[in-house]
Amino acid sequence: MSADKAPNYQTLTKHFQSISHFEHLSALGDWDQATMMPIGGGEARGAAMAELAKHIHSLKTAPMLADTIAQAQQESLTLEQNANLREINYQYLQANAVPGDLVEAKTKAAYHCEQAWRDQRKNNDWQGFKPNLENLMSLVKEEASIRAQALRVSPYDALLDKFEPGMTTASIDNIFGQLKSWLPELIQQVQHKQASEPRFDIPSASAANQALLGREVMQVLGFDFNHGRLDISSHPFCGGVASDVRLTTRYDEADFTSGLMGIIHETGHAKYEQGLPLAWRGQPAGLARSMALHESQSLFCEMQVGRGPGFLKLIQPHLKQLLACPLSHEQLTNIYTRVTPGHIRVDADEVTYPCHILLRFEAEKALVSGELAVADLPDFWSTQMQSLLGINTDGDYKNGCMQDIHWAVGELGYFPSYTLGAMYAAQFKYAMENQIGSVENAIAAGKLADVMAWLQSNVWSKGSLLEIDDLMRQATGETLNPAHFKRHLENHYL
Amino acid sequence: MSADKAPNYQTLTKHFQSISHFEHLSALGDWDQATMMPIGGGEARGAAMAELAKHIHSLKTAPMLADTIAQAQQESLTLEQNANLREINYQYLQANAVPGDLVEAKTKAAYHCEQAWRDQRKNNDWQGFKPNLENLMSLVKEEASIRAQALRVSPYDALLDKFEPGMTTASIDNIFGQLKSWLPELIQQVQHKQASEPRFDIPSASAANQALLGREVMQVLGFDFNHGRLDISSHPFCGGVASDVRLTTRYDEADFTSGLMGIIHETGHAKYEQGLPLAWRGQPAGLARSMALHESQSLFCEMQVGRGPGFLKLIQPHLKQLLACPLSHEQLTNIYTRVTPGHIRVDADEVTYPCHILLRFEAEKALVSGELAVADLPDFWSTQMQSLLGINTDGDYKNGCMQDIHWAVGELGYFPSYTLGAMYAAQFKYAMENQIGSVENAIAAGKLADVMAWLQSNVWSKGSLLEIDDLMRQATGETLNPAHFKRHLENHYL
Ligand SMILES: [Zn+2]
Ligand SMILES: [Zn+2]
Repeated sequence: MSADKAPNYQTLTKHFQSISHFEHLSALGDWDQATMMPIGGGEARGAAMAELAKHIHSLKTAPMLADTIAQAQQESLTLEQNANLREINYQYLQANAVPGDLVEAKTKAAYHCEQAWRDQRKNNDWQGFKPNLENLMSLVKEEASIRAQALRVSPYDALLDKFEPGMTTASIDNIFGQLKSWLPELIQQVQHKQASEPRFDIPSASAANQALLGREVMQVLGFDFNHGRLDISSHPFCGGVASDVRLTTRYDEADFTSGLMGIIHETGHAKYEQGLPLAWRGQPAGLARSMALHESQSLFCEMQVGRGPGFLKLIQPHLKQLLACPLSHEQLTNIYTRVTPGHIRVDADEVTYPCHILLRFEAEKALVSGELAVADLPDFWSTQMQSLLGINTDGDYKNGCMQDIHWAVGELGYFPSYTLGAMYAAQFKYAMENQIGSVENAIAAGKLADVMAWLQSNVWSKGSLLEIDDLMRQATGETLNPAHFKRHLENHYL
Repeated sequence: MSADKAPNYQTLTKHFQSISHFEHLSALGDWDQATMMPIGGGEARGAAMAELAKHIHSLKTAPMLADTIAQAQQESLTLEQNANLREINYQYLQANAVPGDLVEAKTKAAYHCEQAWRDQRKNNDWQGFKPNLENLMSLVKEEASIRAQALRVSPYDALLDKFEPGMTTASIDNIFGQLKSWLPELIQQVQHKQASEPRFDIPSASAANQALLGREVMQVLGFDFNHGRLDISSHPFCGGVASDVRLTTRYDEADFTSGLMGIIHETGHAKYEQGLPLAWRGQPAGLARSMALHESQSLFCEMQVGRGPGFLKLIQPHLKQLLACPLSHEQLTNIYTRVTPGHIRVDADEVTYPCHILLRFEAEKALVSGELAVADLPDFWSTQMQSLLGINTDGDYKNGCMQDIHWAVGELGYFPSYTLGAMYAAQFKYAMENQIGSVENAIAAGKLADVMAWLQSNVWSKGSLLEIDDLMRQATGETLNPAHFKRHLENHYL
């Protein structure tokens, strides 16, 4: 496609290429802030990052875009170019949906609420947190209603759309409704089965040795160290850009198991980034499809591969050599598949985790619609925890509705992505197994690369060229179907 | 000063504050590239950094600036605001002096020349390097002549002005002329004196232990680790921003002495950055005064403090403890003050170093004026090395005129800063000693902080609020006077 034939489209690709360069710098700044920057550098860095965010926003809302997009939509484009134009338009609509002064007001309220929350949470101080959250929530509702008008959807759908383009409350209601019908009983059954299983001591291991192990395990998973690195941060994440993916983790010297599984999880995110289509780097069509799909890749690595006996057998010699770990791969498998209902989402196992999401999804919908007042959130929380997990959380705000950072920074609509991701991951596994046979067998046969190649060809290389439903249909023959997740849990835990 | 009274000045400070935010990100990108980035990340990073450089240039050449600066010059400003306006105007003139297509042509030629030079140098391939350098040099001469017209000075003065605002060829001719009259004989005398001195073996030391030692020595020098860090890069530098200074060094496990002194040198640069005036952060008046003044601070740390017996006595216990180094502080002093004429500038000792600069200054002047053709550079080099240092470099291009990166990237006018810096450093020392007594005595008495406090108050805290001659007059009672440097060398080496 020459510039002569589609001049408006070419203008847009050039403009969004520029934006991606600035987003590259933004990703670098975020990573550095979490891993390298001394505290004293924070103020100037914050100001520089705010300036950069303002500049990126001004590029995404450039006055010429409306006309140029409209004219490009009349140009003769290839299928892939049309997909890129769709994503360009999506980014444009997202950036233009909310007026600048509301963005600024929400950013300030979120900053204030989060800063206070860090101490309030420690002190179980719900009374202190409540007015901040009320203030922030009224801005979130305003944002949701403005986005809803711009995108012509319901307010909560408009929030979901920031993370899961095209996903609706109705779809999630349906999917999560199915989940809720069988999950609590499954948890009971698994707990009953596991009650008589032995428990094993976990040997201590230095952070330095855990880091060596982590890099070896990343190699096993095919992480490309020519395009990425592993460092330490207090909250593990996968950052950077596709050509230079920056993973982080943290190490607990008394228990290496969570740090190691954290690396495996983040490596799943990283493989997705490293596998995004080279030809579309720097364009919206070259980005990951959605947050849920991103989570599906990390959860595939963690749940379908990392916690399985085949993979644990593969890496057990490394654990023995580097950490002097005496555990067999069967013992490691047992440790990594224990199910224990608890208060904290981020510590939850694979089986109970969705209950934490079901609760939050219901709460968010009700908060945004106004059916639930912030003041009534603790009661709502207690009731739901009791019914979903049989846990009493009365008065324990810090391990209850104050535990997550998401609401403290006004980020609603994100939580469902975690569990949608787990469901996509299970669906990918069974589709893959129809084609290449059992994942466990592939790993046992030294063919983990075949598993990765399937993901590369069906998920990573698609970037955002396909909409989510088309991607799922092409990869698995159907759109999201929670039955695969049920089958996965039953196969693994019963 | 309210915005009502000086609206144009306020517009300018806001604009240059924005520029400084983008320059912050540029400094971060440079540092990361040299220390953390995997090779495979280079292409996308390069594109992002080029986009950022273009954006910064567009801000510095914004069409509104000419009028706004002219109008601000009519506003009623404080002395310091006027200084800031002077520096703003200086940055504006520098950025506007050269047309964009010449900048781009030179950037490309420099990139091409440097890439080829990396191999050509290894292979002593002067014939390969010559045409690239000729091509680049013609662009440098074009740049120099355009800058000269804009700034109304001579072409080589216009190049000097990029690094040393206000410095002229005539001044340097005068200063370096004095140096040339006594330095070659001084070198002879020092060599004669040192001929009979013993030599000592240097114990090997792991990079990890050298890094621990480096951080301890930085603490001794008062480096603020809340606003900076130490990492590894193949070419040591001091980068980052004033609120977050990023030092780098490299470690030779067979000889810790150069890596350690490298850290001490870069810490001098870092102390200057960390000591820049807080009230002027983000404004041109808050930046370091010039490259020579920057070098004066690193050389003060290295030559006036670091290589002296007092400081070496102070850190000797750390060397003993961390590197199991058996050398006494007298032996260390001897190692750190050995004078040996050699081919390579960056390996030169304090006494012979200026000869390398004298040669390059003469060569650059003659190259820019056209008196010296690139083809005749090797002969010029041989003659000068013979006369200044008694060294024969015939046919040894890689250790001769191809040794530095500066010309390979088209950077002319920078070399004098190194020796001007050494002279400023000596002048600061004697001025300081008139007020607080001997630097060596202060260190012996545990009062290194007094030395640093003098630099803080007379140099660092001034930023670019004073022009260089005023800064020198206020700090030392006179403008640059090379006699102090002579006295310093005679006192230390004879
Ligand atoms: Zn994740
Ligand atoms: Zn230096």
